[in-house]
Amino acid sequence: MKYTMCVLVENAAGVLSKVSGLFSRRGFNIESLAVGVTENPTVSRITLIADGDEYVVEQLEKQLNKLIPVIKVKTFETGEFYSRELILAKVACTAGNREQILKIAENFRASIIDGDSDTISLEFSDTIDRVESFLSVLRPLGIRETVRTGLIAMEKGSGITAPKKAQIY
Amino acid sequence: MKYTMCVLVENAAGVLSKVSGLFSRRGFNIESLAVGVTENPTVSRITLIADGDEYVVEQLEKQLNKLIPVIKVKTFETGEFYSRELILAKVACTAGNREQILKIAENFRASIIDGDSDTISLEFSDTIDRVESFLSVLRPLGIRETVRTGLIAMEKGSGITAPKKAQIY
Repeated sequence: MKYTMCVLVENAAGVLSKVSGLFSRRGFNIESLAVGVTENPTVSRITLIADGDEYVVEQLEKQLNKLIPVIKVKTFETGEFYSRELILAKVACTAGNREQILKIAENFRASIIDGDSDTISLEFSDTIDRVESFLSVLRPLGIRETVRTGLIAMEKGSGITAPKKAQIY
Repeated sequence: MKYTMCVLVENAAGVLSKVSGLFSRRGFNIESLAVGVTENPTVSRITLIADGDEYVVEQLEKQLNKLIPVIKVKTFETGEFYSRELILAKVACTAGNREQILKIAENFRASIIDGDSDTISLEFSDTIDRVESFLSVLRPLGIRETVRTGLIAMEKGSGITAPKKAQIY
């Protein structure tokens, strides 16, 4: 089972290494991980997707909570959050298929960020299913390279994950 | 000085911990980090932004290249790449400012992904400058929460960063 976790941590050297070290010692492979600053510059927010069983996730949450720089850990329940990923894709382009790539970009509402005679580079963000669908449409044309951010997740509705001390408002 | 690095690694437990451990041992704080799969499912691509001097970056590159699961390390030169970040922002919303938030979303071409009587949640991706500009316009209205992916970067033009063995095409 895949788990989507949000870990709020102090923004300092070594914190990411501590957090990812915990996962690797438990034999958990982190499928995707994104770290960004929050509105409070002293706090970073890590979103990670990991594969494992419920028992291991509980143990990880406990261990993470014991780390001093960890402010809050939350494992999202299915259906209570939305998640999005951003990708950049460089697609091989010929005079013959340029129109087709531009049409795909238009249909998916992807942005064209770069291009030359051989390639077109696209920017696209959406749910994981839509991202996979976008890539599967581009693959037959020849994807030269992709860069993906990993998923980020946020609670549905007006609830927030950050505790008061991690906020500036 | 801020450096944007791309590290291609084997997709296995413990690799991220090794990479981030190197940075922390050198006292480098990683400002943002994003890990996503590539078109080759055995390879992950890490994009990270770190602050430091040229000497330390060179040392880090050498150390990273010595790690067995590291396939390739590339530090981008200024101007040779484009970078993008994705953010989700939950903004406080009242009957009085709902229209204003929707107008901002429209102007920035941000997507509305959720909303209720108290909040509107927006999805936005662009360059770091545009992301900061978007957030600074929203802040006076009251940002409840943000989640950011960290930047991802790709070479301009048709060049690619991945070596042949990390590609499937």
